[in-house]
Amino acid sequence: MGNKIKIAVIGGGSSYTPELVEGLIARRETVELRELALVDVEQGREKVETIAALTRRMLAKNGMEAVKVTVHFQPDEAIRGASFVLTQLRVGQLKARAADERLGLKYNLIGQETTGVGGFAKALRTIPVMLNIARKVEALAPEAWIINFTNPAGIVTEAVQRHTKAKIIGLCNVPITMHHMLAQMLDEPFEALRLRFAGLNHMVWVHEVNVRGENRTREVIDKLCNGATMTMNNIKEAPWPAALLRALGAIPCPYHRYFYLTREMLEEEQADAKAGGTRAEQVMKVEDSLFRQYRDPQLDHKPEALRFRGGAFYSQVALELIAAIHNDTGAPLVVNTANLGAIQGLAADAVVETNCIVDATGAKPLAFGALSPAMHALTTQIKTYEQLTIEAAVNGDKRAALLALIVNPLIGDAKLAADLLDEVLILNRDYLRPFI
Amino acid sequence: MGNKIKIAVIGGGSSYTPELVEGLIARRETVELRELALVDVEQGREKVETIAALTRRMLAKNGMEAVKVTVHFQPDEAIRGASFVLTQLRVGQLKARAADERLGLKYNLIGQETTGVGGFAKALRTIPVMLNIARKVEALAPEAWIINFTNPAGIVTEAVQRHTKAKIIGLCNVPITMHHMLAQMLDEPFEALRLRFAGLNHMVWVHEVNVRGENRTREVIDKLCNGATMTMNNIKEAPWPAALLRALGAIPCPYHRYFYLTREMLEEEQADAKAGGTRAEQVMKVEDSLFRQYRDPQLDHKPEALRFRGGAFYSQVALELIAAIHNDTGAPLVVNTANLGAIQGLAADAVVETNCIVDATGAKPLAFGALSPAMHALTTQIKTYEQLTIEAAVNGDKRAALLALIVNPLIGDAKLAADLLDEVLILNRDYLRPFI
Amino acid sequence: MGNKIKIAVIGGGSSYTPELVEGLIARRETVELRELALVDVEQGREKVETIAALTRRMLAKNGMEAVKVTVHFQPDEAIRGASFVLTQLRVGQLKARAADERLGLKYNLIGQETTGVGGFAKALRTIPVMLNIARKVEALAPEAWIINFTNPAGIVTEAVQRHTKAKIIGLCNVPITMHHMLAQMLDEPFEALRLRFAGLNHMVWVHEVNVRGENRTREVIDKLCNGATMTMNNIKEAPWPAALLRALGAIPCPYHRYFYLTREMLEEEQADAKAGGTRAEQVMKVEDSLFRQYRDPQLDHKPEALRFRGGAFYSQVALELIAAIHNDTGAPLVVNTANLGAIQGLAADAVVETNCIVDATGAKPLAFGALSPAMHALTTQIKTYEQLTIEAAVNGDKRAALLALIVNPLIGDAKLAADLLDEVLILNRDYLRPFI
Amino acid sequence: MGNKIKIAVIGGGSSYTPELVEGLIARRETVELRELALVDVEQGREKVETIAALTRRMLAKNGMEAVKVTVHFQPDEAIRGASFVLTQLRVGQLKARAADERLGLKYNLIGQETTGVGGFAKALRTIPVMLNIARKVEALAPEAWIINFTNPAGIVTEAVQRHTKAKIIGLCNVPITMHHMLAQMLDEPFEALRLRFAGLNHMVWVHEVNVRGENRTREVIDKLCNGATMTMNNIKEAPWPAALLRALGAIPCPYHRYFYLTREMLEEEQADAKAGGTRAEQVMKVEDSLFRQYRDPQLDHKPEALRFRGGAFYSQVALELIAAIHNDTGAPLVVNTANLGAIQGLAADAVVETNCIVDATGAKPLAFGALSPAMHALTTQIKTYEQLTIEAAVNGDKRAALLALIVNPLIGDAKLAADLLDEVLILNRDYLRPFI
Repeated sequence: MGNKIKIAVIGGGSSYTPELVEGLIARRETVELRELALVDVEQGREKVETIAALTRRMLAKNGMEAVKVTVHFQPDEAIRGASFVLTQLRVGQLKARAADERLGLKYNLIGQETTGVGGFAKALRTIPVMLNIARKVEALAPEAWIINFTNPAGIVTEAVQRHTKAKIIGLCNVPITMHHMLAQMLDEPFEALRLRFAGLNHMVWVHEVNVRGENRTREVIDKLCNGATMTMNNIKEAPWPAALLRALGAIPCPYHRYFYLTREMLEEEQADAKAGGTRAEQVMKVEDSLFRQYRDPQLDHKPEALRFRGGAFYSQVALELIAAIHNDTGAPLVVNTANLGAIQGLAADAVVETNCIVDATGAKPLAFGALSPAMHALTTQIKTYEQLTIEAAVNGDKRAALLALIVNPLIGDAKLAADLLDEVLILNRDYLRPFI
Repeated sequence: MGNKIKIAVIGGGSSYTPELVEGLIARRETVELRELALVDVEQGREKVETIAALTRRMLAKNGMEAVKVTVHFQPDEAIRGASFVLTQLRVGQLKARAADERLGLKYNLIGQETTGVGGFAKALRTIPVMLNIARKVEALAPEAWIINFTNPAGIVTEAVQRHTKAKIIGLCNVPITMHHMLAQMLDEPFEALRLRFAGLNHMVWVHEVNVRGENRTREVIDKLCNGATMTMNNIKEAPWPAALLRALGAIPCPYHRYFYLTREMLEEEQADAKAGGTRAEQVMKVEDSLFRQYRDPQLDHKPEALRFRGGAFYSQVALELIAAIHNDTGAPLVVNTANLGAIQGLAADAVVETNCIVDATGAKPLAFGALSPAMHALTTQIKTYEQLTIEAAVNGDKRAALLALIVNPLIGDAKLAADLLDEVLILNRDYLRPFI
Repeated sequence: MGNKIKIAVIGGGSSYTPELVEGLIARRETVELRELALVDVEQGREKVETIAALTRRMLAKNGMEAVKVTVHFQPDEAIRGASFVLTQLRVGQLKARAADERLGLKYNLIGQETTGVGGFAKALRTIPVMLNIARKVEALAPEAWIINFTNPAGIVTEAVQRHTKAKIIGLCNVPITMHHMLAQMLDEPFEALRLRFAGLNHMVWVHEVNVRGENRTREVIDKLCNGATMTMNNIKEAPWPAALLRALGAIPCPYHRYFYLTREMLEEEQADAKAGGTRAEQVMKVEDSLFRQYRDPQLDHKPEALRFRGGAFYSQVALELIAAIHNDTGAPLVVNTANLGAIQGLAADAVVETNCIVDATGAKPLAFGALSPAMHALTTQIKTYEQLTIEAAVNGDKRAALLALIVNPLIGDAKLAADLLDEVLILNRDYLRPFI
Repeated sequence: MGNKIKIAVIGGGSSYTPELVEGLIARRETVELRELALVDVEQGREKVETIAALTRRMLAKNGMEAVKVTVHFQPDEAIRGASFVLTQLRVGQLKARAADERLGLKYNLIGQETTGVGGFAKALRTIPVMLNIARKVEALAPEAWIINFTNPAGIVTEAVQRHTKAKIIGLCNVPITMHHMLAQMLDEPFEALRLRFAGLNHMVWVHEVNVRGENRTREVIDKLCNGATMTMNNIKEAPWPAALLRALGAIPCPYHRYFYLTREMLEEEQADAKAGGTRAEQVMKVEDSLFRQYRDPQLDHKPEALRFRGGAFYSQVALELIAAIHNDTGAPLVVNTANLGAIQGLAADAVVETNCIVDATGAKPLAFGALSPAMHALTTQIKTYEQLTIEAAVNGDKRAALLALIVNPLIGDAKLAADLLDEVLILNRDYLRPFI
């Protein structure tokens, strides 16, 4: 069996899994696999078994039939003996996400799944489940690394890091997608760009673009001011106002639109909801169609249509991270991990998204120094929102929950926050511990 | 002439001045006056001369005719030889304030004179004038203390402190008014209450209420939750939501309503503007009526009606501060001064509003420690807004100005901020250096 | 019984107690006493009963016979119902102190009781006893304040603050003595001087001397450079080198001589030890003579000779502190309490010695800002030594103990530290928990 | 000419240069050379010409005769057009170093060239010369990187970084030597070890030894406690006391002996000085013998004897750093650069020695977090000493100089410091600006 490893995937029935499998096939030489253990909830049995069958076909096609693909409805056996535990779960499925979005719309607020009231509701639902998984990892596979994709990824990663001893790194495809887009914009190979990321998950800026020692940040900003766009599948494409970009002197990530262009984003969300349904409602349709394809016993590769699902480069980042840890390479990756002083003015144990070096001991952030004042203020606000949300989720603390919503820049007003909180707690009562 | 001092009042034609004069009369034994130099702009000649005449009558009635009352339309001669320079000026008069309020209303935003876009516009107009005054103090009366009442008082005080060597302390009547209200609420003498203030000007919380060693904070919060109100003349009375107070565990100041109850405050502002006009428009009427009374050659005391103007306890705080410095008393006062580490997480040179000890060397804040997370986040945001505004005003820096409005929680949206900035710069073009 | 209070004195058999009693008599109107409970160890029975008898005579002479004076050999009954618990105990008595001094001399090191290896040994002996007292206060008189005089006062105060919930303030007569000396030097009344103290106990500097708003620091330094001395009874008088004072720009406390003039201090200590014995050995003789006087049934006042014992102004600071808390006065006092950000670069919970405002809620330090670099470095070193010593004493942690001695600037060398540690643990084996 | 670069070597006449040339030959494919410009002072003409001739023979032997080797007695022409400026100069030559050592011995103090009074004297002599070089680089080759080997390397690097705009990275062979030694001790390949360095130059600890994800720090400490040694040519071999290593939980660098084992090191230094002369005096002999060999027109390679000179791995680190910058590789190297928050509690602009990622934009330290308290205290002390020394050297500030010596743990005593300072200023009067 040698150095062949077992990977557990919590939320293995996700429509993204074939993307991950494709990555495992592509990297089979650097990350040799022994077993892929897919875990999902009982209600998702049909989906996860569909995924398992497709996975087996994909592996077989590539001469990897020796890899065991197992399916589990309790995490324990999947976690035991695993070297990596990938978490990509969705508590309450897309139905809960749609409810979050509709709640936002009801109050004329952004209902997106990682920011605003939607992200808050998702965090409350998800944190208890993730802590439960992490405690099992602690007990059953203490040397394993949790690779977390579960959104809101920054909050979830910090909750696990603060409240368990499990080793965890949070991952997101935003940084790598920005990297690809900037490479394309500058007509340079991906590898030639050195980007300086610092911020939080879904709220990260590129502060510097260097190509072979030359600082080309200003050139990128000029291009963006002149209409070049840099957006991702699951975010509406609103071009950045030139004055904003020049004032920031940095490149915001697509999710920053929720904060900097709130009014416009809300209008588009409202229009979309009227037209084709909310994002979750649209995704449900995409998922139905994807699973129809996945069930085809002839299908032995990732179908093209998956790329509309929004997870571009998902397997690239996942596999690069796994390979860096497994092979102790010291690779430079942008991940979510404890700050340790890298970004000035944030606590050492606050989880941040920034350039790291990853080896077998984990991720170490590069010292960044201070964010410029306006970025520091927004980051402080969001990090405080995140930490209050974690406190609320872990302790069922209604006061922390209310403050979280008040601190969140997409809400702010205390009466609005109180109304929203009441609704969130009722809508999610099946997933939450009692709040007092 | 002994230890008798000269006090200069910049903006001496203000309707508040008789309040100050009343204070000078009441404290004549601790602060012996030699000269009161009233300075105003040429356009305000009639008003300041009215005030000067009334002042002379008030002093004479109290046997203080030896005090010289002088009127100036250039600050230099007023400042020379002064021990204290009180700044209570209003660049652009109430007309400019009314324009700020109307601008806010046009965009469905709070237009109040110290928060939001109104405070921003006022800061841009005021900072250059105040720096000019401060540089004259530096040159002509380097030992003098500037006692600043000019709003936005926190920003103005920090601008002077950062960009000149003049000695300055910022003052506001909010803390003392809260102190009086809380004493009344607890049915205790004013002196028995020890209140712990920490925050920024017009954004300060009472974190602890102690009476003879007993912590009665919770009792005060309970009372406020049960309908006790604590509001000031110039702020609308919206009772605090109980959930907010209990979550904060502290007592917000009246101006916090603009941040915590934005929607409600805006609605009231809009309704008021329709009914009796904006706050500035109402104040103009009050002022007209006040000055009619002031002109009465029989009037030799502060008229009752002044108390509707909103400056309760204005002379009490001013005179207590002057007396503490002049007599080197080490009195405990709540003022605006450099943080010096008192509030954790704010820069040493950030101006904060907190409990200080005041003696002849100035104000020294008491170490407070950390604000609770939600308060720290809001304070960081507002302080960043303030510092970006100062940078904008001092350097005519349009990028800093845009970021200031984006960081301001009452604005936030970048496109809205850009539109507002354009209007502010046009409306105030007579008062501003060129912005680039 | 009204507002009359009970004060417990742990170490009531100390020769200093009559000084305290004299203070209680002088302040009887501001601090009305009901009971004075003297606690000591069984071995000190004769001494504490001598003190109790003298105390009763002193009180009677001043018409205070109504005050109950009780003697205890267990602290519990003394602490129960007390408003203040004064701790001035000496674990191992002067014999242990003499052993510390002789140990230092054996290794050519300063053996003084609050610095170097002597202070370290004393801290190890004292912390467990003080924690025991503090836990009893927690349980039996949770509202009481511990006023700690026990040396090393900074370390002991921090140990109690870190490891119990008892309320404690540390006191020392160094700041008040410096204040008196500086007043005399400037020929100004005590009250006219405003001094800015910041540092640690027995390592505090006066950073600024202000008299009625005028900064006279430089003048004081000039006087000191020209031979004015400022020393205390229990410290050898070595004049400060002018170059040092001018480089510091501040006035060191007498105990700084151990750090800045180590060689000279050691030589004097060695010479004294040869001549009249170590400090403890000399004090034993003073004590014998004092107790002989105390036993005189005619004696009903503090004998003059006590002033040679070295506790000048001891009762002044103790009573001022008690009065400030008891009467909620907000008096400005220099005490040892948690830093809370007052001195930049030290942790919020590090105990520092600096200007505070004291009222019924305790002591609040005034924000000081940053120490100049050379002072910051020494302060960091000593504070680290102190915290390692506390860790060693509380946990019986030999590694922390070794590091404490290595970090202490009077030791430094690791082999020397190891040898010293072995000897300290053996010499004090009766007082220490087992070290591992 | 393509991408071929020019390297200037300030202090090119050093006996180390053949080591560097050997490295340039070995790496000729990754760092293609166009010109090697050797700069030295006029007094060193014979030496630098000897080195230039040997260099040409070495290059020729390896088919690199196309590389131009130039000799300069003014830096300007050497710097113009250079991509890298290596600084390895020695102001006052070995004679000055010997004088420093003898001065130390006179006062019973360590006289070593980078710590204590010797390092201080060397810093005072060297900083003005290095600033002069750096200002020329600023003007003549603003894109060039200064690679500084000149001791005391941490101080010199920080002086240049603080007072010029030249780009500089400080290098030392201590980290790489420790890495080689630890690899040997664990019988693992060099590449398999991941070491966590954090501290200052010549005062750096290895905090963690990881091999393929396994933390083997404790094993290394055990080996060292059991007699394994890890020393370098130019430091006396004193085995570490086991108790110290276990208390630290980290591996000190060889130079830490001067701080932790001061007494022993001093005794050995004194014994050596009596026997074979001070280190500088011994090195002079080695140098004479080396240059005799260098002059041999048959010699076309680095002579074996050079390895006794103490510069093990000097060319390896120099070339790895040059290659990482030149080829934008992002290589992990341990260098001296601005802290940027990497080590908690040190200023962002303090130069530290720690793990960095090096690419064409320079060196970025990995966030380390907090040093353990005893290490933090020593580091604060030494960094403060360094910064006061820089201030003294740059401004001729005698007060800063005195404080530097007082803060230095090898001196401490103020009178001793004053005496030493007088001697240092006289001995080095030819090299220093006037001190006041």
